[in-house]
Amino acid sequence: MKMKQCSLQALEEYLHATFNWEVHDQALNGIQIANERGVSKLGVGVDFCDDLISAAEKAGCDALLVHHGLYWGRVEALVARKYRLVKRMMANDTALIALHLPLDLHPVLGNNIGLIEALDLVHSGNFGDYKGNAILFEARIKRDSNRKSSNLEQKYASIDFKDLCTRYKSRIGSPLMTLQAHDRSVERIGICSGGGLFGVDMAYQHGCDTYITGDANHIAYHQAKELPINLICGGHYYTETFGVNRLAAALQKKFGLTYQFFDLPTHL
Amino acid sequence: MKMKQCSLQALEEYLHATFNWEVHDQALNGIQIANERGVSKLGVGVDFCDDLISAAEKAGCDALLVHHGLYWGRVEALVARKYRLVKRMMANDTALIALHLPLDLHPVLGNNIGLIEALDLVHSGNFGDYKGNAILFEARIKRDSNRKSSNLEQKYASIDFKDLCTRYKSRIGSPLMTLQAHDRSVERIGICSGGGLFGVDMAYQHGCDTYITGDANHIAYHQAKELPINLICGGHYYTETFGVNRLAAALQKKFGLTYQFFDLPTHL
Amino acid sequence: MKMKQCSLQALEEYLHATFNWEVHDQALNGIQIANERGVSKLGVGVDFCDDLISAAEKAGCDALLVHHGLYWGRVEALVARKYRLVKRMMANDTALIALHLPLDLHPVLGNNIGLIEALDLVHSGNFGDYKGNAILFEARIKRDSNRKSSNLEQKYASIDFKDLCTRYKSRIGSPLMTLQAHDRSVERIGICSGGGLFGVDMAYQHGCDTYITGDANHIAYHQAKELPINLICGGHYYTETFGVNRLAAALQKKFGLTYQFFDLPTHL
Amino acid sequence: MKMKQCSLQALEEYLHATFNWEVHDQALNGIQIANERGVSKLGVGVDFCDDLISAAEKAGCDALLVHHGLYWGRVEALVARKYRLVKRMMANDTALIALHLPLDLHPVLGNNIGLIEALDLVHSGNFGDYKGNAILFEARIKRDSNRKSSNLEQKYASIDFKDLCTRYKSRIGSPLMTLQAHDRSVERIGICSGGGLFGVDMAYQHGCDTYITGDANHIAYHQAKELPINLICGGHYYTETFGVNRLAAALQKKFGLTYQFFDLPTHL
Amino acid sequence: MKMKQCSLQALEEYLHATFNWEVHDQALNGIQIANERGVSKLGVGVDFCDDLISAAEKAGCDALLVHHGLYWGRVEALVARKYRLVKRMMANDTALIALHLPLDLHPVLGNNIGLIEALDLVHSGNFGDYKGNAILFEARIKRDSNRKSSNLEQKYASIDFKDLCTRYKSRIGSPLMTLQAHDRSVERIGICSGGGLFGVDMAYQHGCDTYITGDANHIAYHQAKELPINLICGGHYYTETFGVNRLAAALQKKFGLTYQFFDLPTHL
Amino acid sequence: MKMKQCSLQALEEYLHATFNWEVHDQALNGIQIANERGVSKLGVGVDFCDDLISAAEKAGCDALLVHHGLYWGRVEALVARKYRLVKRMMANDTALIALHLPLDLHPVLGNNIGLIEALDLVHSGNFGDYKGNAILFEARIKRDSNRKSSNLEQKYASIDFKDLCTRYKSRIGSPLMTLQAHDRSVERIGICSGGGLFGVDMAYQHGCDTYITGDANHIAYHQAKELPINLICGGHYYTETFGVNRLAAALQKKFGLTYQFFDLPTHL
Repeated sequence: MKMKQCSLQALEEYLHATFNWEVHDQALNGIQIANERGVSKLGVGVDFCDDLISAAEKAGCDALLVHHGLYWGRVEALVARKYRLVKRMMANDTALIALHLPLDLHPVLGNNIGLIEALDLVHSGNFGDYKGNAILFEARIKRDSNRKSSNLEQKYASIDFKDLCTRYKSRIGSPLMTLQAHDRSVERIGICSGGGLFGVDMAYQHGCDTYITGDANHIAYHQAKELPINLICGGHYYTETFGVNRLAAALQKKFGLTYQFFDLPTHL
Repeated sequence: MKMKQCSLQALEEYLHATFNWEVHDQALNGIQIANERGVSKLGVGVDFCDDLISAAEKAGCDALLVHHGLYWGRVEALVARKYRLVKRMMANDTALIALHLPLDLHPVLGNNIGLIEALDLVHSGNFGDYKGNAILFEARIKRDSNRKSSNLEQKYASIDFKDLCTRYKSRIGSPLMTLQAHDRSVERIGICSGGGLFGVDMAYQHGCDTYITGDANHIAYHQAKELPINLICGGHYYTETFGVNRLAAALQKKFGLTYQFFDLPTHL
Repeated sequence: MKMKQCSLQALEEYLHATFNWEVHDQALNGIQIANERGVSKLGVGVDFCDDLISAAEKAGCDALLVHHGLYWGRVEALVARKYRLVKRMMANDTALIALHLPLDLHPVLGNNIGLIEALDLVHSGNFGDYKGNAILFEARIKRDSNRKSSNLEQKYASIDFKDLCTRYKSRIGSPLMTLQAHDRSVERIGICSGGGLFGVDMAYQHGCDTYITGDANHIAYHQAKELPINLICGGHYYTETFGVNRLAAALQKKFGLTYQFFDLPTHL
Repeated sequence: MKMKQCSLQALEEYLHATFNWEVHDQALNGIQIANERGVSKLGVGVDFCDDLISAAEKAGCDALLVHHGLYWGRVEALVARKYRLVKRMMANDTALIALHLPLDLHPVLGNNIGLIEALDLVHSGNFGDYKGNAILFEARIKRDSNRKSSNLEQKYASIDFKDLCTRYKSRIGSPLMTLQAHDRSVERIGICSGGGLFGVDMAYQHGCDTYITGDANHIAYHQAKELPINLICGGHYYTETFGVNRLAAALQKKFGLTYQFFDLPTHL
Repeated sequence: MKMKQCSLQALEEYLHATFNWEVHDQALNGIQIANERGVSKLGVGVDFCDDLISAAEKAGCDALLVHHGLYWGRVEALVARKYRLVKRMMANDTALIALHLPLDLHPVLGNNIGLIEALDLVHSGNFGDYKGNAILFEARIKRDSNRKSSNLEQKYASIDFKDLCTRYKSRIGSPLMTLQAHDRSVERIGICSGGGLFGVDMAYQHGCDTYITGDANHIAYHQAKELPINLICGGHYYTETFGVNRLAAALQKKFGLTYQFFDLPTHL
Repeated sequence: MKMKQCSLQALEEYLHATFNWEVHDQALNGIQIANERGVSKLGVGVDFCDDLISAAEKAGCDALLVHHGLYWGRVEALVARKYRLVKRMMANDTALIALHLPLDLHPVLGNNIGLIEALDLVHSGNFGDYKGNAILFEARIKRDSNRKSSNLEQKYASIDFKDLCTRYKSRIGSPLMTLQAHDRSVERIGICSGGGLFGVDMAYQHGCDTYITGDANHIAYHQAKELPINLICGGHYYTETFGVNRLAAALQKKFGLTYQFFDLPTHL
């Protein structure tokens, strides 16, 4: 089968049509480094880094699709690390495409929905104001359709926090940290992939009893314990592999591109 | 021996005379909650939290001295967690004194110098602009005075990164994460207690080969690895027990107060 | 008759559903200090102050409803006056509920409409941009339905400024200051309870011939005199007793609470 | 005697050499409207207004010196009141010179020192940060040199608040409002002419027991009463007649100009 | 024929109803200086300046309508040049009306549409975000209706850049600068009268091959040449004579005013 | 003669030691793009552009030194023009060094002093506040030492504006625009290379009768004419060739580098 190819322009138009570009984001979303040969095979990773460039080069990719790219709101000279990374990309004629918050938030292709579906939960709403966007996801527990219920009008089930942790471990992997803050069952879960601890209080105010995010951080520990709201910190990396893979699959379907995911975890 | 007592006002005057209050800080430094009975026994902790209040109450403290207090730049109502914490403090007639960045930065009483001395290193300078203050510390390796040296004019020694990690573990405890980014010996170490990963690039620019801080974070991983600069992330909590203890000892000496440190680690 | 009780949460939900929370306001609107026993008897006042706490304590109130609460956009430590006020509230298990601009602006429960109705005027529109909200009220003179009029299509009447001042005095009380700036009849009146002198020029631009507010201030004197636009400065306190009383009556009707208004004028 | 004349440029140079122009001020200090004939007779007033123009015209002044001029930080078209005022000034070939905060703060020519000397007090220091300037004055009570004192080392005396009010009334006039907040003697007085209620808390923190300013305002009432700190609100106008008169006398001495003060009180 | 007269208020109401006042603009749009006699004959010019006042005075105008007025976002005293200009206007009883960005952008009365129609082009859309407004115009080449076309569905034609320059010169005048950046035909032209070089990159991103504006500037030279996008810089003055003339004609029609255009080019 | 070579780091240290880096500047000053081979031959130009890269490549330069580099305060992706320029530089292993305002302002190596010396004027002071720096230069006319003078104490001479224009043309080239605004002799000249029209009013306030800068712009025309202050607008390019050449010569002397200036005028 012959590989299809598409232009950077076609890719960029698809990204603009598919994602919400209005969300406030320090990252520069879209094509961060152009190339000349267009795109036929995407290298997919969470983080733009030296190892990813090497892996992509070896695999013959002509573009990289990542969640964390090169630009974070500051003008920086092309020196030292930045010089070396850009020089390798240009020498390899490889483009860099980065999607940050717009990818976290996409209701089908995003990291949050990926996390929710990996845990077999139900996406039941959004909440939490972040500069005008409701960027936190709410998830509920699916009812067991085989079990008879005396309360037919209940739409969602509940689950013990320990069982949720077990489910997290078996379906995604060991979290960095879990914190049981109360004895009640888990019914409403706030979800934010990556660095989402800013949302702990918003989740509690919204009525969530449990919060799942990537980063673990000292500052949120006592806050969560005493609000109280349970915490599962799955690791920044491990909660953000979903989006780039889902987007790559959508690009494959749309443009006939091939792609390969390179798993380069930081264990953080 | 009769316990001495001092007024909150005397304490506040001492703090103003002793620390740099000009440093930009989100925290509200100084007395955050007053009391009526003055201070004779200080409860000392890293984080203001429910468990610390309980411990201090049991031990008969009339004031708490912490690094992380109640106010972080946002006006928040006295409801939920904040209501419960303040109510307990007022019911116990216990004052809350918090020192954040001014404590990190103090050249004798602070967290950074505490970390440096615990590792038997030498404080050799400050660097890194943070809103007008050089808040990062530079440390060097002490020369072994017993060993003969062919190079008498060398002021400092070098050390293998693995040996530095071993020293860290034996003198302070297992770090959250270590990252060896190059094969050179360690000669110049950037130091920032607590959440100091913002300083990784500043440390590299300054000429440091190694950086020691508290927090570990996904975003800094590839940056450090590729700059390259070694990382030791000792944990936010474990790098910030020094300052409050040193300050409490100074207050004991100055005012005759007694104090007790309550170790409530978050392991983060 | 047994007193009804309601939870702080129920109260907060009602406030959110009833008022415009989008208006820009330095004040922290809503529950500023929680309590534990819920609310059955509201103490109502214009200003949160020591005398109000004493009056409410004596009358057995479990919550205070005020226009001017404790928080005005600055993070301040719980020391001195703030410490004493919060400590009394917590010791009394009394909650503090504050509504500022949202209460001024409410078309039925607010201070402006209260002022308009107390003067037997007609609310005929809103004007004056304040960070995106039209927060000034326009009032007209009611036609005398008993009098025959040769001009049947006239919707509103006019009044002499001196008669308006007399009406103000008899229905509300002696204003701090009145200023007659021209000889024309009063037809269109700008209204802003409390500190509304920022609106004098907006009112003139809008076509008002007269302006009623609370504060009197040197800076606005020559401006009003020369624009020209008549001024009635009724006093900050006396123009802001309407809202808290109307809201308390609404809460009584909604939740079965009782309430008592404590009149503690500053004469300013 | 022939009147001397000076150019606007000479006046402006004198003002720049005499006052602190670095203080942050909304007002546009200096020459606000030029003229063509230069300056020989100054009309002096607190507020630039229609009545002042009329008085100055009648008295044959070629320039006005005021504390409150035409420009307050907003670009405004020359229409309505502003058009009429500027047109009259230009038609009369009369210049407008305005000095606001630099005049309040001048240690010899200013409003604060004028207030202090009118009350026979001693200027004992400055305090209170306002965007980088210490704009509040501290005053003490003169010792009675005739009376024998057992405590020879006391530099200052104390006075009953009631006696201070009596002295204020007899030497300056009836204040708008006085508030006795405690029973202690008056020893340290914070002083800020005009609209100085923002300084009530700063004065209390600084150790003042009493505060004298111009404006009276509802919002400061309970604050002052409960801090506690006594208040004398002398009226914005009456506390700001000193500076323009002192400056005019200095200009008379320096340049041989004549001047006439036009007293147009607002009673606010 | 007797000249009609209208009031400044009627003029202002018309301007508010006709133009978009929401566009962010440093200029103070509308009546900048009032007069007393109302308006019957408008003097029309691009720039408010001494020569325009002289011309208008000689021609008996009672108001000036300009694109560049007196106020540009800074509060400035009425001294030196500003004093002389305002004094002349007031002495002449002449009003000043200024319309800046709202006039550039008006789809019928504006400078951009005037430029487009003078070049016999078609206004085909707007683009380019400037603080929330799409202030750049897109123009296309009219099809020659006489010529038979094999491609009937083509709505627009193309033109050689040299022919467009020739057309510009013959219909408007010699531009300050032209730059041919590529060999393709001209199909889509970005248009921005006056100082529009900030829009060069926006025009290229939007798909324009050519950009017409007023100012020529060093900084945009290499940018345009290398993007590439052709440039015609017609001069700030010469691209901004259209709007004031069109608006004056509309005012003539609406109010029966007469007007006279005074051509005072800067050749810039 | 063997060419000397120096490292980028040595160059950067020299630049930091030589120039004022505190001046507020949108540009990113210093090394904007690194290289690997170090620097032995500098290509020197005013503007970083495609033609300069070609010229430098042909001449065998390993670094470019320019006044206008790649970064102007906005984070922009490496696409389109930016992609092509960076790719060429990296493929050629050529570094980019840019110095903007620090170069304009240097008292020996800068553009302003170069302009002053090319016109045989005397640098007599600095003035004009630009975000805290006095970035405008004042120049005076040299006295003719051969001519006897009746006024021996005069330090400087005067010159007719027409003669100054003639001198400008003969020593530097035809200016873009000259404007004689008054008949007085030229005695004090404000100087600002490049885009300096923001300084016209500052120069007039400072007492200059004439202003020399690079850009010509419509907006400043009537302002200069009426202040009045004479204008010579020499062109942005032609007033900014001095600094890069002077700096290159200094680098040659310091490090033994060779350099070649590539004259690529924009005539703007």
